[in-house]
Amino acid sequence: MNATTNPSFDIAHLGHVEVYTDRFEDSLDFFTRVYGLKLSGQDETGAWLRAWDDYEFHSLKLTRHQTTGVGHIGYRAASPEALERRVKAIEASGYRVHGWTEGDMGHGPAFRFEDPFGHVFEIYYETRRAEPQEADRPALKNTASAFTGAAPRRIDHVNLLAEDVTEFRRFMETCLGSRVTEMIRLDNGRLGGCWFTVNNKTYDLACTEEHGGGHGRLHHVTYATDQREDILRAADIFLQNGVHIETGPHKHAIQGTFFLYVWEPAGNRVELANAGARLILAPDWEPVVWTEAERKKGQAWGLKTIETFHTHGTPPVKKEP
Amino acid sequence: MNATTNPSFDIAHLGHVEVYTDRFEDSLDFFTRVYGLKLSGQDETGAWLRAWDDYEFHSLKLTRHQTTGVGHIGYRAASPEALERRVKAIEASGYRVHGWTEGDMGHGPAFRFEDPFGHVFEIYYETRRAEPQEADRPALKNTASAFTGAAPRRIDHVNLLAEDVTEFRRFMETCLGSRVTEMIRLDNGRLGGCWFTVNNKTYDLACTEEHGGGHGRLHHVTYATDQREDILRAADIFLQNGVHIETGPHKHAIQGTFFLYVWEPAGNRVELANAGARLILAPDWEPVVWTEAERKKGQAWGLKTIETFHTHGTPPVKKEP
Amino acid sequence: MNATTNPSFDIAHLGHVEVYTDRFEDSLDFFTRVYGLKLSGQDETGAWLRAWDDYEFHSLKLTRHQTTGVGHIGYRAASPEALERRVKAIEASGYRVHGWTEGDMGHGPAFRFEDPFGHVFEIYYETRRAEPQEADRPALKNTASAFTGAAPRRIDHVNLLAEDVTEFRRFMETCLGSRVTEMIRLDNGRLGGCWFTVNNKTYDLACTEEHGGGHGRLHHVTYATDQREDILRAADIFLQNGVHIETGPHKHAIQGTFFLYVWEPAGNRVELANAGARLILAPDWEPVVWTEAERKKGQAWGLKTIETFHTHGTPPVKKEP
Amino acid sequence: MNATTNPSFDIAHLGHVEVYTDRFEDSLDFFTRVYGLKLSGQDETGAWLRAWDDYEFHSLKLTRHQTTGVGHIGYRAASPEALERRVKAIEASGYRVHGWTEGDMGHGPAFRFEDPFGHVFEIYYETRRAEPQEADRPALKNTASAFTGAAPRRIDHVNLLAEDVTEFRRFMETCLGSRVTEMIRLDNGRLGGCWFTVNNKTYDLACTEEHGGGHGRLHHVTYATDQREDILRAADIFLQNGVHIETGPHKHAIQGTFFLYVWEPAGNRVELANAGARLILAPDWEPVVWTEAERKKGQAWGLKTIETFHTHGTPPVKKEP
Repeated sequence: MNATTNPSFDIAHLGHVEVYTDRFEDSLDFFTRVYGLKLSGQDETGAWLRAWDDYEFHSLKLTRHQTTGVGHIGYRAASPEALERRVKAIEASGYRVHGWTEGDMGHGPAFRFEDPFGHVFEIYYETRRAEPQEADRPALKNTASAFTGAAPRRIDHVNLLAEDVTEFRRFMETCLGSRVTEMIRLDNGRLGGCWFTVNNKTYDLACTEEHGGGHGRLHHVTYATDQREDILRAADIFLQNGVHIETGPHKHAIQGTFFLYVWEPAGNRVELANAGARLILAPDWEPVVWTEAERKKGQAWGLKTIETFHTHGTPPVKKEP
Repeated sequence: MNATTNPSFDIAHLGHVEVYTDRFEDSLDFFTRVYGLKLSGQDETGAWLRAWDDYEFHSLKLTRHQTTGVGHIGYRAASPEALERRVKAIEASGYRVHGWTEGDMGHGPAFRFEDPFGHVFEIYYETRRAEPQEADRPALKNTASAFTGAAPRRIDHVNLLAEDVTEFRRFMETCLGSRVTEMIRLDNGRLGGCWFTVNNKTYDLACTEEHGGGHGRLHHVTYATDQREDILRAADIFLQNGVHIETGPHKHAIQGTFFLYVWEPAGNRVELANAGARLILAPDWEPVVWTEAERKKGQAWGLKTIETFHTHGTPPVKKEP
Repeated sequence: MNATTNPSFDIAHLGHVEVYTDRFEDSLDFFTRVYGLKLSGQDETGAWLRAWDDYEFHSLKLTRHQTTGVGHIGYRAASPEALERRVKAIEASGYRVHGWTEGDMGHGPAFRFEDPFGHVFEIYYETRRAEPQEADRPALKNTASAFTGAAPRRIDHVNLLAEDVTEFRRFMETCLGSRVTEMIRLDNGRLGGCWFTVNNKTYDLACTEEHGGGHGRLHHVTYATDQREDILRAADIFLQNGVHIETGPHKHAIQGTFFLYVWEPAGNRVELANAGARLILAPDWEPVVWTEAERKKGQAWGLKTIETFHTHGTPPVKKEP
Repeated sequence: MNATTNPSFDIAHLGHVEVYTDRFEDSLDFFTRVYGLKLSGQDETGAWLRAWDDYEFHSLKLTRHQTTGVGHIGYRAASPEALERRVKAIEASGYRVHGWTEGDMGHGPAFRFEDPFGHVFEIYYETRRAEPQEADRPALKNTASAFTGAAPRRIDHVNLLAEDVTEFRRFMETCLGSRVTEMIRLDNGRLGGCWFTVNNKTYDLACTEEHGGGHGRLHHVTYATDQREDILRAADIFLQNGVHIETGPHKHAIQGTFFLYVWEPAGNRVELANAGARLILAPDWEPVVWTEAERKKGQAWGLKTIETFHTHGTPPVKKEP
């Protein structure tokens, strides 16, 4: 059986990403005032944030920490039964299991486990919905909260770094029932990167090869915008607010995503992306395989991939050039 | 069990719509030269058309006929096994069954059945992929065909008319395992409209109440564009080519879709639509229910729904005002 | 000599419009928080506002008043000498002259005069520049102030109502040296509307026939956006903030402008508009003349002009339906 | 007197640019089929092309030649009298004068003269208007020709290379009465670049320092698009058609223009640009001066200026790296 062509549908979607920051106030100011997320809740450990059309209480947990990087990645299961099925599959997998947690401000009980590269995942079903009050109530009842005019509409995906992408792929297919939609096959036979989805989105998680010597690191977290124009406007807002724009706006050849990468004040890379009308609807989608030569052509419209994109991850490992 | 909250995932996606035309040459010229679809194949019965990123051979079958309207609606199953499960469910349902066909130029064996209002559906698994040759080969290998610059990227949905939308809903849930994402509840208790999906798209089929006295009629067929700007540009192209623009561009309150409706030369209504980054990811999505009073407010930004939108369907029933 | 084909260039551009409001706090909240203008200054008479790239201190003077409507319209002259030439031309014209004022918070001495329909104009040369401080300082030194993300970039035009558009045209050509770029010629021979410019913009002032029985009234004030997408986004912001959207977004046939009209809380009509790359560069531009029949076709993409657009002006004259 | 703050208005606008090509058929195919210009006329010397809303017969003369580069640059005068005034000023200037020509397929008598770096200019008043026939007739009578859906709406500017930009500035102010809107002041005191306009456009001609050792060379020719989205779409069209995309889409810090640069088949650099709603309306606009340090920051959103942008001009001088 090939997990790629038979997604289990046990997992409904990426729910949230926990991001560490050692400059909490600056990061919170960035994510709320500049990037445009809403503050759902806050306690001494950090803040729960969501985009205006995220239906759950939070899609980003911003956590005070001694360093930067990713705390954990949460996926919501399709049903209580589906959650049970996944837990059994994970327990049988041999991957490291942390076990059940009580959940937190944003959701109910969650089952935690870990990939071989130190990233912690959790799956849960019981969730808390966004609770818009007063001015935050949406004018259109089919949106989760009031439209703010800000670029991010909903969480889109997370990109992790791993020393062995092939091994990471096995983890994703085994534990989450993800399917691979695109990948990079290096000349040495290794996978340079792999894009996964549990539903019809073109990807909800990407894993690219760690080149910086780190372990369990984050490459970036991404929110989806409604239009490409939202990203162009955001670029001017980032410029005006002194945010470090790393690269973009431009279009990835892989996945065809229109992108913009910035670094939030603590150094975590954050993306805004727009996939247009692209979805993976074919049930027998064959993963698109990109060669190293194709990769070297740069992005779709010829932009060369900048050096920091290959080396910068969080937390930092060694001094970057 | 509630089919809405537990989609079967047996059906992968809407595959194609067969549209009848009594002005074949004019319709074909419209769909290829003005609207921007690609011609995959043609024989004496009609033409097989697709948008530039439809992965199948065709998403629109344009059929020579003595009148206009919809021939049949095709959905692709998720696997051969899923197809079998659906066939059994349909055979057990009591709905009228046409049985197996050999398929056509665009796909393999298909199982046909009919809703109580005269619309013919088919489900199939074996399909034929788009076969781009030479200049039609895409520059990016993760797209189905060459980008043409035209607005439609892929088929999006079809809108049918039915005398009893509640009954139609039962048909969709029973036969296709669709779930309802939004609906209109009239003051008289009837459903005025219902929006269905088999995957994470916000809808792939809508059914609205027949007010024109017809049976088995088509309201419109829709293709998705990457950006709202594609629709604004298309409006100028329609204007330049003398196409009847019925209403739009504007934004629907229901589903939040940015839309533009035109009539192709034979009179079938065709839409271009953009949903932005909106998807239905929640596995326990509660259908959004719109009241008659809310409906009367018009579209999202206040545009009043024009009269023909309530009365015009194909084929024509009686002389419209 | 035909003023239309030989603009004097004595007047550089539309500078500001004074708008009356009998709900000052509500109007100010709308213009700053919702519409997105910046507050340059304020005193007991009202507020001085500007868009983020207006180079002058203000482009909108919002004045506390017992009713709504337009206070005066200010144009900036091209030089002190040009100002003198215009003053002489106006004094010789026979139109009603108010004479010199000391100017106000936003500019130096201004010469005031009046059209036959009660609208007060002023021309001035000495001006005060926008004075961005701290967070309002632009990241790019070729813009006037910090980019806020809001839709309006600069003031675009004002639309006045007059009982006799032909007579108003003579006033504009005589006093400001404006040229006519487009006009509506009614079947009865009268001008239904006339669009004027003093520079390469397609228009900075429009005058349409008064149908509501008023005198010296305002039809609307307009700011220009960088992109059409800014207007679509603004529509959602207006919807979210309960602003009355009168009509649009759509495209005018006349001038080809992409538009959106709303009413600010006191009832004055305000527009957001985008002209794309259109400019009037031809020195011998022949005014485009639209017939009444063409006008009845509605807007460019077929939207019918709504009734209030013909009747609603400020201040109100009689109870509107 | 400072020519910058007192534009003469004798010259109305940039009319056309003559571009040389040593691959005429390929270049013509590019400009018509891919870039989207219209063919107004053709003879054995070359082709006359225009964008869909250029009001003159042509804005690009594509000329068969033994090499690439710019043939001449044509500006249209504001009136016959203005033309005479300019001719006298040029004759008195000491710059090299070619004298009167009879004009060509696209316009009447033209007066030719030359800058110190070998670029030939001409000014003319009598012109020939675009003559759309049948399908080329515009649906809206205020546009010059049928809207084609292609990106370029009208000619925007030309960028020349000169060994001494300060000297070139003197030429432009003296001969055309142009004013400077922005400039680069290098640490060595020289001008690195200078942007000129004769009207309210932010620039119609730019001159940057020649670094490649050439004489009288062309840096690029640019057409304006209505929206930034047109440029993003064009990027995909260029990609699909194998056109060399040199850099962009991105936003220039200088002038704030959203840009995309490609090389047409013969090697001439061609740009698509969008200025949004930006205009130079202030009659006393102070030229914005950029330092070398500011210039080194790259483009507005941080893109580093690529090497070929500093070295590639046409015709080629020496082998580029």
